[in-house]
Amino acid sequence: MRDGKPRTRAELTAQTGLSRSTIGARIDTLSELGLVKPVSYASSTGGRPSSQIAFNAGAGIVAAADLGATHATIAITDLAGNRIAETHTRLEISDRPDDVLTSLAENITSLLKQIGRDSSELMAIGIGLPGPVEHDTGKPSKPPLMPGWDGFDVPAAMRKKFQVPVLVDNDVNIMALGERSAQWPDTDHMIFVKVATGIGAGIISGGQLQRGADGTAGDIGHIPISRGALVPCSCGNMGCLEALASGPAVAAGLRKNGADVRTGEDVIALVRAGDLAAIQAVRQAGRDIGEVLNMCVSIINPSVITIGGSMAEAGEHLIAGIREAVYSRSTPIATQHLTIEQSHSGPQAGVIGASILAIEHSLSAERLESLHGRRTA
Amino acid sequence: MRDGKPRTRAELTAQTGLSRSTIGARIDTLSELGLVKPVSYASSTGGRPSSQIAFNAGAGIVAAADLGATHATIAITDLAGNRIAETHTRLEISDRPDDVLTSLAENITSLLKQIGRDSSELMAIGIGLPGPVEHDTGKPSKPPLMPGWDGFDVPAAMRKKFQVPVLVDNDVNIMALGERSAQWPDTDHMIFVKVATGIGAGIISGGQLQRGADGTAGDIGHIPISRGALVPCSCGNMGCLEALASGPAVAAGLRKNGADVRTGEDVIALVRAGDLAAIQAVRQAGRDIGEVLNMCVSIINPSVITIGGSMAEAGEHLIAGIREAVYSRSTPIATQHLTIEQSHSGPQAGVIGASILAIEHSLSAERLESLHGRRTA
Repeated sequence: MRDGKPRTRAELTAQTGLSRSTIGARIDTLSELGLVKPVSYASSTGGRPSSQIAFNAGAGIVAAADLGATHATIAITDLAGNRIAETHTRLEISDRPDDVLTSLAENITSLLKQIGRDSSELMAIGIGLPGPVEHDTGKPSKPPLMPGWDGFDVPAAMRKKFQVPVLVDNDVNIMALGERSAQWPDTDHMIFVKVATGIGAGIISGGQLQRGADGTAGDIGHIPISRGALVPCSCGNMGCLEALASGPAVAAGLRKNGADVRTGEDVIALVRAGDLAAIQAVRQAGRDIGEVLNMCVSIINPSVITIGGSMAEAGEHLIAGIREAVYSRSTPIATQHLTIEQSHSGPQAGVIGASILAIEHSLSAERLESLHGRRTA
Repeated sequence: MRDGKPRTRAELTAQTGLSRSTIGARIDTLSELGLVKPVSYASSTGGRPSSQIAFNAGAGIVAAADLGATHATIAITDLAGNRIAETHTRLEISDRPDDVLTSLAENITSLLKQIGRDSSELMAIGIGLPGPVEHDTGKPSKPPLMPGWDGFDVPAAMRKKFQVPVLVDNDVNIMALGERSAQWPDTDHMIFVKVATGIGAGIISGGQLQRGADGTAGDIGHIPISRGALVPCSCGNMGCLEALASGPAVAAGLRKNGADVRTGEDVIALVRAGDLAAIQAVRQAGRDIGEVLNMCVSIINPSVITIGGSMAEAGEHLIAGIREAVYSRSTPIATQHLTIEQSHSGPQAGVIGASILAIEHSLSAERLESLHGRRTA
């Protein structure tokens, strides 16, 4: 029901395959929690009007934070991920985690005050971090950009400030969740690719974000590509995708030919200015990424691939290279319904996804039952 | 509860996070269906003894069939996938589907008679076919080995003979389900690779078999590998894994050097006889497969990879090549807990997996509710 569409009890029975009595009992529970509410009568065809009920996204709020290397987006959202209040702030993730999280907590408190809500109303907090995170414990695991955070118990630190569940994941996973929620809510098999300083993917299979056995699923930046044999990667191997197609890698390639570029952003600026060498380099990076995505298509068979991250700002040149490589190699059946597009939710994908982390936890069957048990006890 | 371990109501409450009243209601439903039963009292420590309940695998039976190109394994199993009766029979899958399915139905009927059960007791039928299948409809989709089956409605044809749900999938997917059920029941992220005339994988992520958007997930046989650039594949591309590392491909390579081998089975015979060229060729095929599995490890992050299919009979030589390639390239964190092994459930994996297809459908929440509704109505 989370899509917000009103439905009658008969429709819910038909759609879920559950019995009328089960549906009735579940609606009663959700009503007592305020999570569903009756809406205006369905247009009657003369018979008895059927009352419809709908998900009440306003029944609760969560806090969401997308923390980057040097900036953060922090929001309060309702239970459908709609942002009620939002702030962008500078923040050095390489600082001590206690300091960063104290600043995060202050921002959340001030957003709550802005909209006249109290921290006791928060149902959960979702946080995205720019590095590997053990999702089950919420602890970063050897994160290169934030070495001081290795093994730090982020949920425990946040729970000292807010007594609610705290969910933590890496930035690519929350962007995948956010992109799906905002743009592809009915898609069960999709891949979100972030192309920036590094390259990584968030993978949704069977409707679920897949993290794998150790949380490294989607770590496509270190898959070797065909033209890479002689290029060393920071990981110690040769020819990794990231060593050839990330923003800094493309910039390094252009620098060799005399261009004054340092970062992916510099490359984008050249592309926008119509620089032919930069356009060609970005297109080749797209082909490299497409070579790896072609494998992902064979293995996962998604119906949607979206490309985000700062390098996606290069627009059609990057996407064209990706499409070229994927469509030239993949089997016809795996690509007949495949869409490859630039991310539409843009820089907001992360914070939306962090709110989804918090909302999905808050609305899980176990969690709802425990809330319901507590209120009726 | 499907593992068969007895549990008390308190243990179930703790493990699921559901309330005592919900657990109680669900146990009542399952009891009325005969799916759980009380077992002997837990050893008491002096207080009131707690009664335990356990899954009653004997409460129902399903039929399962693993149909190959020229043979079939057909079984009746209980609801834990234990085979109660089983038969192996020759069968030409290239025959008309009506004839093949009539023969299958006769075999099921005769197995039921053997164990004194009636077809009205069957809860579902699971069938594996040696080709692509649209799982939702149970229709084969352009299957190369069985062209007469393209689009044939297998469930409808079987339901003319047995009035129960019929679930159909390809052979690699059912082998993955069977291997997991028999050997790795607690593993949520695993890949089963079949290496035979073709090469394919069944992928379990997040505890679920993943079929992808069009049912082609795990189709790894047509991923290009590095040493393949000049080798044409039957699919029309160059350098596919299958064109270099399948049984017939390895045999073709040995034939070029004068060996009298035609099939993968001939290769295995040479390996067993200690033929050095054959051993080297199988090890190289292992490296090729490992090159692709290395990408699967980056993308999916499984904790277990098992290798089955006729070429797995080559034993350690194939596995050694696979391990060599995976461990030399994958990131340390993705392989620290990774097990790569030969399939242990062997040729039985398929029929066990077909029974799992049938059992999972029979025990789904929707299905149980509908059964319960019918009996109490």
